[in-house]
Amino acid sequence: MEKTVKIGFLGCGNVGGGVWRLLSGFSREIAHRTGLRFDVRRVLVRSLDKHRDLPAGVLTTRVEDVIDDPEISIVLEFLGGEEPAHQYITAALERGKTVVTANKVAFALHWHELQKAAKASGAGLYYEAAVCGAIPIIHTLEESLQANRIHYIYGIVNGTTNYILTRMSKEGAEYADVLKDAQRLGLAEPDPSSDVEGLDAAYKLSILASLAFHGRVPFENVYVEGITQVQAEDIRCGQELGYTLKLLAIAKRDGLKVETRVHPTFIKNDHPLANISGAFNAVFLNGHACGDMMFMGRGAGDLPTASAIVSDLVRAASAQKHLYPTFENELNPTVALQNNTDWRCAFYSRMLAQDRPGVLSRIAQTFADHGVSIAAMQQKGARAGGHVTLVFITHEASEQAMQQAILEITPDVATVESLLRVED
Amino acid sequence: MEKTVKIGFLGCGNVGGGVWRLLSGFSREIAHRTGLRFDVRRVLVRSLDKHRDLPAGVLTTRVEDVIDDPEISIVLEFLGGEEPAHQYITAALERGKTVVTANKVAFALHWHELQKAAKASGAGLYYEAAVCGAIPIIHTLEESLQANRIHYIYGIVNGTTNYILTRMSKEGAEYADVLKDAQRLGLAEPDPSSDVEGLDAAYKLSILASLAFHGRVPFENVYVEGITQVQAEDIRCGQELGYTLKLLAIAKRDGLKVETRVHPTFIKNDHPLANISGAFNAVFLNGHACGDMMFMGRGAGDLPTASAIVSDLVRAASAQKHLYPTFENELNPTVALQNNTDWRCAFYSRMLAQDRPGVLSRIAQTFADHGVSIAAMQQKGARAGGHVTLVFITHEASEQAMQQAILEITPDVATVESLLRVED
Repeated sequence: MEKTVKIGFLGCGNVGGGVWRLLSGFSREIAHRTGLRFDVRRVLVRSLDKHRDLPAGVLTTRVEDVIDDPEISIVLEFLGGEEPAHQYITAALERGKTVVTANKVAFALHWHELQKAAKASGAGLYYEAAVCGAIPIIHTLEESLQANRIHYIYGIVNGTTNYILTRMSKEGAEYADVLKDAQRLGLAEPDPSSDVEGLDAAYKLSILASLAFHGRVPFENVYVEGITQVQAEDIRCGQELGYTLKLLAIAKRDGLKVETRVHPTFIKNDHPLANISGAFNAVFLNGHACGDMMFMGRGAGDLPTASAIVSDLVRAASAQKHLYPTFENELNPTVALQNNTDWRCAFYSRMLAQDRPGVLSRIAQTFADHGVSIAAMQQKGARAGGHVTLVFITHEASEQAMQQAILEITPDVATVESLLRVED
Repeated sequence: MEKTVKIGFLGCGNVGGGVWRLLSGFSREIAHRTGLRFDVRRVLVRSLDKHRDLPAGVLTTRVEDVIDDPEISIVLEFLGGEEPAHQYITAALERGKTVVTANKVAFALHWHELQKAAKASGAGLYYEAAVCGAIPIIHTLEESLQANRIHYIYGIVNGTTNYILTRMSKEGAEYADVLKDAQRLGLAEPDPSSDVEGLDAAYKLSILASLAFHGRVPFENVYVEGITQVQAEDIRCGQELGYTLKLLAIAKRDGLKVETRVHPTFIKNDHPLANISGAFNAVFLNGHACGDMMFMGRGAGDLPTASAIVSDLVRAASAQKHLYPTFENELNPTVALQNNTDWRCAFYSRMLAQDRPGVLSRIAQTFADHGVSIAAMQQKGARAGGHVTLVFITHEASEQAMQQAILEITPDVATVESLLRVED
């Protein structure tokens, strides 16, 4: 008893091509396992001349051919970026067509509105592939951890920056050199800013945090700091102290308070996230019933993303009724969002201090004045010009207090070369 | 629009108690997120005198009070072990009641028959908690990786043995000493055989492999070797060569051939599974579309298991129609099961050899005669009595050839102290 479902693609680049190949090459197995066959009726492309591997009759340059086709029940969106994707997704939903998307940007920025459009027409809205590629983290949060109060999520959710940091760590290389290599290898975009400045991670974190805490966490509320300022020397100093540097997307909930931030973060070498190397993604979380969990997989790439898209497609086509996540309500009045820099964590700082009596004591006193207590300190050999390098790891302290202490230390006592956060 | 679902428990020990606490303590959140309230009508216990925390009217010592209650639609089975659990689950399914179970033994041994009973009455059969506690690996295989040809699964699926091996590795302690400690801490049973001899892992592997390869892999087909013979010295020698020892449950598919085996296994220190410590479980897999993935979490314990049970309960109560995995069929004629010892892998072996000319060459020649090629070798300082320790790592070779080579080396040339498998 097989059922054939007619679908349309919006876009057919890397991911769309992967879905096409997976659906055509693995159709017998998918049909056998799920009872479903997928018939790709129309594919929106920019130019009819490319895409030689697709049947000519399927291609179109008019979006209406996809979203107005009454036979198409599910639309797969692969355009990426905010517009026109957001507009097309909305139009499809308004026409009662279920949408499966890998578009984190359109989704993170317009989720509320998209869900409203979906509910109004009874269409489904599926977005597993928008976060962490092949990893079924969306589905896990929605369908396997409902009986948990999630305390926190730490994610390595951007493969480009994880690749760069992994190579910097292993080779002692500098950021700019590894970035060039990554661009040459196609692992970083020609304009890498969305990845290296942490925006891509922040989009994904806003989606993960909203689902984990059952309260919508807008993208604008995520503090974002990328890896462009990371220096090889700090990675080295951290390694000597037993830490690995990762770009972490962090969401924590304390009662009704939620903090969300993306920044380079030192974690202990034996933390399961420390071994997540290269272009892999991973999400580590803690729930009151499940305890610690981690999910690792490929966060990008044609077939890994297609694996998640097709699982959503099967889910969408099998659903008797589409479900939508529940947000703001009497249980989470409005999950209170932390001010951008109002959190506590441990810190790492490297300073260049004058090599004279009393300097260390003044630094320590300034920290103490702001309630920052020191967990570990290393003094490195004297440098030319009578300066020494000091490396501090602090106990947990307030971000604002730490920033204030750093301001007071600079520039009279020491030059602060770097300030990085540490999570256990 | 909340729906109340009446449920019954078979058993109320550690896991049952955890489910009770989670359902009662977190009911508002579960109802809000899922629209479902669960009303525990009857709980089968051995004695009415214990279980003071449960309402007295709920307790019963007669199984009929649970499985014959027409108001109960879902039965949760927490008895564990093969009988009477298997018999009770069957009876419940025959009466059209959906069953949620954490029972890997009854399930691995009687899956076919249980699924037949479920299908006949239209009841659901849910077993996420039977494998790896809180980790949603069953659900992921069934609902997120349908579009993948799974090539292999490596699992750390038994927390007791992982705890013992982790402590042996970190402390250089011997098996028997750590086992005693684990028993004192309640991390190993008074009779630990099912865990330490690998049976528990084999039950779980037969379930995982069946789902991953869409062909039933009976428990009897799993090669099983536990950790009782593991020596601290081998863990140490492995560490020097860059390897960590884990009890791995391994399932590989090559075309239609499937091999399944549970044994102590050396993996490289930078493999993501190497950092899975203590009582944690993890499953590492590779699919043709998704690539490498890993899922880590608590494999046992009251609340972690309850987290999985409640997710199944929600799934069962929300399903319009219960689904069953598909097995043997035209696509997997009968997935051919490998003979118990018919596989290829790399090996580690430690030998005590006589310290005289020609010994090493005879060993190397014997390996070569059987097609076993050496990847790394270490000779350790001479021992009393003119013996030296030799440690070999081989390239991939046939298990049977390796066993034959070992037989020929012993005892004339060297005493083989240990033979362990290595996976990359």
